[in-house]
Amino acid sequence: MPASDFSADEYATGLAKTRAAMSARGIETLIVADPSNMAWLTGYDGWSFYVPQAVILPSTGNPIWWGRPQDKAGAAQTTWLSSEDLLDWPEAHVQHPDHHPFESLVQHLHDRDLTRAIGVEMDNYYYSAKAHAILATAFGELADATGLVNWQRAIKSQAELALMRNAGQLTAHMHATLRAGFREGRLKHDLVAEVQAAGITGTNGIAGDYPAIAPIAPSGLEASASHITWNDRPLTRGEATYFEVSGCFRRYHAPASRTLYLGDPPADIRRAEEAILRAIDDTFAAAKPGATCEDVAACVYESFARAGYEKANRTGYPIGLSYPPDWGERTMSLRPGDTTELMENMTFHLMPGLWTPDWGVAITESFVVTPEGGKPLAKIPRDIHAVQA
Amino acid sequence: MPASDFSADEYATGLAKTRAAMSARGIETLIVADPSNMAWLTGYDGWSFYVPQAVILPSTGNPIWWGRPQDKAGAAQTTWLSSEDLLDWPEAHVQHPDHHPFESLVQHLHDRDLTRAIGVEMDNYYYSAKAHAILATAFGELADATGLVNWQRAIKSQAELALMRNAGQLTAHMHATLRAGFREGRLKHDLVAEVQAAGITGTNGIAGDYPAIAPIAPSGLEASASHITWNDRPLTRGEATYFEVSGCFRRYHAPASRTLYLGDPPADIRRAEEAILRAIDDTFAAAKPGATCEDVAACVYESFARAGYEKANRTGYPIGLSYPPDWGERTMSLRPGDTTELMENMTFHLMPGLWTPDWGVAITESFVVTPEGGKPLAKIPRDIHAVQA
Repeated sequence: MPASDFSADEYATGLAKTRAAMSARGIETLIVADPSNMAWLTGYDGWSFYVPQAVILPSTGNPIWWGRPQDKAGAAQTTWLSSEDLLDWPEAHVQHPDHHPFESLVQHLHDRDLTRAIGVEMDNYYYSAKAHAILATAFGELADATGLVNWQRAIKSQAELALMRNAGQLTAHMHATLRAGFREGRLKHDLVAEVQAAGITGTNGIAGDYPAIAPIAPSGLEASASHITWNDRPLTRGEATYFEVSGCFRRYHAPASRTLYLGDPPADIRRAEEAILRAIDDTFAAAKPGATCEDVAACVYESFARAGYEKANRTGYPIGLSYPPDWGERTMSLRPGDTTELMENMTFHLMPGLWTPDWGVAITESFVVTPEGGKPLAKIPRDIHAVQA
Repeated sequence: MPASDFSADEYATGLAKTRAAMSARGIETLIVADPSNMAWLTGYDGWSFYVPQAVILPSTGNPIWWGRPQDKAGAAQTTWLSSEDLLDWPEAHVQHPDHHPFESLVQHLHDRDLTRAIGVEMDNYYYSAKAHAILATAFGELADATGLVNWQRAIKSQAELALMRNAGQLTAHMHATLRAGFREGRLKHDLVAEVQAAGITGTNGIAGDYPAIAPIAPSGLEASASHITWNDRPLTRGEATYFEVSGCFRRYHAPASRTLYLGDPPADIRRAEEAILRAIDDTFAAAKPGATCEDVAACVYESFARAGYEKANRTGYPIGLSYPPDWGERTMSLRPGDTTELMENMTFHLMPGLWTPDWGVAITESFVVTPEGGKPLAKIPRDIHAVQA
């Protein structure tokens, strides 16, 4: 599904913001290897990020798409770029022990005279140490522009918010499917299959795309670990299961976690639930423009502290357009020390989860910052869904 | 789902092979950041590869798992390692602008006196240019060990082949679901939801995991691009759609593509089909131990040439255990110039696909090398499935 189908104005605004940030950093040419950033700048969409590809953004003129020859047709179909700005590397170099596609990028940059003040995303899944070594050998020192484009994506346009609200409808539909199917003896993978299908079949005419993270769905002791996916064991009485899932609409996400329980949740889990629900309310009240990331994070830490629990990890991160393996934007974090001010139409995944050595409870919300506080992107009952049967 | 549940002997064999390769390269300590390699060496499983993590393999003693604190419980649950060999980095450093988890890895390596002759996977999604810069600053030149562990995985054990045959059953079940659901007017995403659910619900008591690549499912002109996923448009008469999907059983894959057509496929598509079917038969006949990668690739190129088509890209790659974004092992390629000899129980995804400017046809098979030739891992009718309705 196309990453986005934004107006020319929308893309022009994104380019202008990115170029202003490049200029402030003294970067003349930016090599963008993060597929989310590539999509945000050009619309490019395809499961081709497992081979080297990039958008090259000079300080003036059109961006350039560069990738594998067999993906150039995909770039022509999904981006707003013109065909003379679609470049490729020799197909024979795909996963070759003695050649690397970035050697061809060096040549293309020379051909277009884009060899000075180059910025690269040093800390990104899709820009390898090897790719960097090739560029550094050719061009000397390169500026670290990790997150440069990601930061421009923080405040969402109305068009982006509309996509994220659709993603939120998908997420809500997935959780409704989950509540309906959660019962003793049900095999976990069968339930996951149903929930995932609900996110793609969709609801209200909204069709789903693949989310950037597979369903996280640990039960009981498994839930003491935070990133266990699923297995084929039956759902069992006396175990809490949390599901962290997201609908994905044109590559935009709105993740949410809920905890479900077979039987009566014990007092410690109920106490965690109460602390989490209070943390969400307090955060939403505080999440207005001008509050800082650490201000809103404090709402979570304080609620947990009042309940006698200590939360040792961050309480949230920005979300939006994304590709595997992460639906976060990797810029701000809702945690102590992050004094970034929230601005209207920023979007976050609030993560007031609690992991103890014996169990885990996660009830999380994706929200947008408004002058009235945080507004959830998905409407889903928040309480632990306890099933007695 | 655990990456694997192999015997202690199986893991010991993998470690011994890897250490022999390290020794041959003069590497004393190997930093393994590829999640597939981490799983193959230790069993580690979890969707945590979006943050820095690694298995540290010294030339003697146990491997060490290193990752985010909240994932240590997952390492304890899924690996065979003992708790003193599970190390972590400060949680406060997750996606932090001024800190990087690899700074803690430097300290851990000093603490354990593992600072000499270090090898790293320079060209891997999960070893960033930034991570490398930190290690290089601390330890000077590092050996490029890209693919070192991947190469040890090329020949599959009987236990691995059993998992891959189960993955093949899942793949076959997905394609049966696809054939049953493929009809005019069907919305693509609804069919994808059904196929994906079939791969997880599974068949014959075999439950599925998330595959390393989302379904590739382009129709008509879209299929001229090779990595378009799906959309919400109706299946239309006169269009070829190909589906490239894989079941995933305990992280092992057996991908296969099939092409479906609404109406009567035109002569050029039938001619491509014939060339592909012949290419598969010829490759399977040739794929015996001792044949080289380029020998078997020639079967594909020659079959296409006889039909008047030129195939410009490689015709296959090794497969097995994997995590997103790629189910390939990134070692050999079935293409001209690769003179690696096939060995018994190597496993490949044979990709005799043809992409023209107007359409694409892909009929592909995962196979195991045996003394009698290539044996498919999934039993799926190969012909283009033409639906007249």
